[in-house]
Amino acid sequence: MRFEELWTQTGEWLKGSGPNADIVISSRIRLARNLAKYPFPHWAKPAQLEGVLSDFEKAYKEVDYFKGALYLRMKDLFGIDKQILLERHLISREHITNPEYKSVLIGDREIISIMVNEEDHLRIQVLQSGFNIQDTWKLTNKIDDDLDKRLDYAYSTDLGYYTCCPTNVGTGLRASCMVHLPCLVMTKQINQLLNAITKLGLTARGFFGEGTEASGNFFQISNQVTLGHSEEEIIDNLERLIRQVIDYENAARKSLLANQKQLLDDKISRAVGILKSAHLMTSEEALGLLSEVRLGIDLGMIKDINISMLNDLIIQIQPAHLQKTEEKHLSAEERDVKRAELIQSKLMG
Amino acid sequence: MRFEELWTQTGEWLKGSGPNADIVISSRIRLARNLAKYPFPHWAKPAQLEGVLSDFEKAYKEVDYFKGALYLRMKDLFGIDKQILLERHLISREHITNPEYKSVLIGDREIISIMVNEEDHLRIQVLQSGFNIQDTWKLTNKIDDDLDKRLDYAYSTDLGYYTCCPTNVGTGLRASCMVHLPCLVMTKQINQLLNAITKLGLTARGFFGEGTEASGNFFQISNQVTLGHSEEEIIDNLERLIRQVIDYENAARKSLLANQKQLLDDKISRAVGILKSAHLMTSEEALGLLSEVRLGIDLGMIKDINISMLNDLIIQIQPAHLQKTEEKHLSAEERDVKRAELIQSKLMG
Repeated sequence: MRFEELWTQTGEWLKGSGPNADIVISSRIRLARNLAKYPFPHWAKPAQLEGVLSDFEKAYKEVDYFKGALYLRMKDLFGIDKQILLERHLISREHITNPEYKSVLIGDREIISIMVNEEDHLRIQVLQSGFNIQDTWKLTNKIDDDLDKRLDYAYSTDLGYYTCCPTNVGTGLRASCMVHLPCLVMTKQINQLLNAITKLGLTARGFFGEGTEASGNFFQISNQVTLGHSEEEIIDNLERLIRQVIDYENAARKSLLANQKQLLDDKISRAVGILKSAHLMTSEEALGLLSEVRLGIDLGMIKDINISMLNDLIIQIQPAHLQKTEEKHLSAEERDVKRAELIQSKLMG
Repeated sequence: MRFEELWTQTGEWLKGSGPNADIVISSRIRLARNLAKYPFPHWAKPAQLEGVLSDFEKAYKEVDYFKGALYLRMKDLFGIDKQILLERHLISREHITNPEYKSVLIGDREIISIMVNEEDHLRIQVLQSGFNIQDTWKLTNKIDDDLDKRLDYAYSTDLGYYTCCPTNVGTGLRASCMVHLPCLVMTKQINQLLNAITKLGLTARGFFGEGTEASGNFFQISNQVTLGHSEEEIIDNLERLIRQVIDYENAARKSLLANQKQLLDDKISRAVGILKSAHLMTSEEALGLLSEVRLGIDLGMIKDINISMLNDLIIQIQPAHLQKTEEKHLSAEERDVKRAELIQSKLMG
C-alpha cells in the first residue's frame, strides 16, 4: 500500500457496515506491549529505541497478513501527512511529537495499526466498523500471539503486561466503541447516561479520542481498568454496556418519532439544507450537521445519501485532509470555504 | 372591492417598487382629524359615535376616488378578518378592541385607509412603496382637503388640529418610512444610528408599528413632534434623515461586499437553504431569514426570487393570513408547520 492510496480511500471502520452500525460506528481494541530487553520509550536511549524499531520490523515482516502493509517512520513524513494519520485515527496526537524513533504499521483497509515507540514500545490497534467487539478482540489476540512468538514481551505472572503508565498494567487492553447518540442528546438523557458510565468504571470521550470534547453526538466509550480482570471480562463488560446504550438510544429514537416527528423532520431537513447551502463551515458545525443527517438516514427519512459517503466526509472535512486535497496550506478561514464546497459537492452528488 | 380580493392580493406598498426600494420598503403618512361637533371617541356617547360614522360615510361617498373602495364596520367582521387588516397595516391594534362604533375605509390597492372612531374621529393613512414621502404627502393632503370640504374639522389657528392625545396636536401628522437595514445591523452600527435618531426627535419602531420590536432588520422611522412645525418641515426633516440612513446602509453594504463577501454569501445562501428546508418556522425566524434573502436580491446575489413575492410572503406568513388561507383555526405549532410549507412552496415555485 502507498500513502496516496491510504488517505484518498475510506477506512474499513467508516464503511457503515457491521452489526448495529446505525448506532455503533466502530469497535476498537488497543493493546499496550513492551519488549523485555529495552527500557520504556521515555527512558530509552536512541540505540535502544532503534533496537525496538528493528526488532519490530523483523518480527512483522514474518507475519503473512502484514504483507503489503504500509510501514512508515514518523521522521520521514511531512507534518501534513502525520496529521492525516491522526485524523484517520491511525496514530495518537503524542505519536506526532518527537518523531525521530517512532514508526507506524498500517494494515490492509486500516483495520490494523501498530505504533512503535509511542508511550509503550508497541501499541496494537484493531478498528472495525459496527458493533463488532468480539471479532475485533479475536483479531487483536491473534496479532498479539503472532508478535509474541517473535518478540520477548515484558510480562509477569503476577501483574501481567508491564506498561509505561500504571493505568495500563495488567492486560494492557483498552476496548472502545464509537457510538452515535443524537436522540439521547436531543432528549437530554445523555448526561445521566455518561454519569452512569463513569460510575461503572468506564469512560466516554469525543470523536477524536482522549482529551477531545464530544461533538456531533459521537461518543467513544471505553474501559478504564486494565488490571485485575481478564481480557474477556473487560470485553464482555463493555459489550454489555454498549448493548444497553443501543437500547436507550433506540428507545429515545422511537419516542421522538412517535411524539415529536415534526421536530425531527425539521431538524434533519434543515441540516441537509444548511450543508447544501453554506459557503463557510467549521469542522465542528459540519460534524454536528452530519450527525443529524446520519440520524435522518438511520430513521429512513433521508434516502438519497449514502452512510459510508457520509462517514468518509467526516474524515475528509478535517483540516489535514482538506489541505492534502487542495495540495496547499490553507488558513482556518480558507478551510471553512473549502469544507463547505466539499460538503456541497458530495451531497449534491 | 370585496374583502376576499383584499387579503389575497399584494398591497401597493409591498410591490417593492418606487425610489430606493432596496432600502426603503414604504413611505407612510397618517393624519389625525376630529369633527368639531362631537367629543373625542373616548368620551363620546353611542349616538355621537354613530353621528361621526354617518357624517364620514356621507362625506367619503361624495369623493370620486373612493368609488369602489372597501368600507367595513368593525363590528361586522370576524376576529380573524380584523387580524388580517392589522397584519396588512390597514388598521391599528387599538381599532380591533371595542369594535361597536368603529369602521375603516380602504381605497384601491390599499394605498389609502381611513379609520373612523379610533383614538381620533378620523385617522387618514396613505401608504406607498419605496422612498416616496413627498408624493405620499401630496396624496394625503388632497384627501384631507377633499374631506375638509365636507366635514367640519376641530381646528384652531393657534394650535392647529385638535387631537385626542396631546402629542398629536398641531399638524396631527405622523410621517414614517419603513427601512431595511441588514448591513447596519450586521456591522453593529445600528444602535448608534437609533440613538442619533432619537436625539433628533424622531423615533424607530418595529415592523408592526408602535409597541413592536424591530425584527428582520426592518425599522419604521417616524417623527415624534407634531406641534410647532409645518407639515412641510416635518416631512422635509424626515426625508433628509432617511436619505442619510440610505447612505449609511449603502456604505455598510459596500464595505461588507468589499471586505467580507464570503461571509455575506454564506449568510444569504444559508437563509435560502433554511427557508427551503425547514418543516417548522416561527414568524420571527422567517422575518429574519426573509430579510437576508431580500439583501441577497438587493446585492444581485440572488436572481431567481422576486422582491414583490418576497414582500408579499412577509404578510402571508402572519398568523391570521395563514389561518385564512387554511380556512381554519391553527395552533401556534400548526402555524409553524403551515408557514414552513407556504415559504417552501413559494420559494420552490
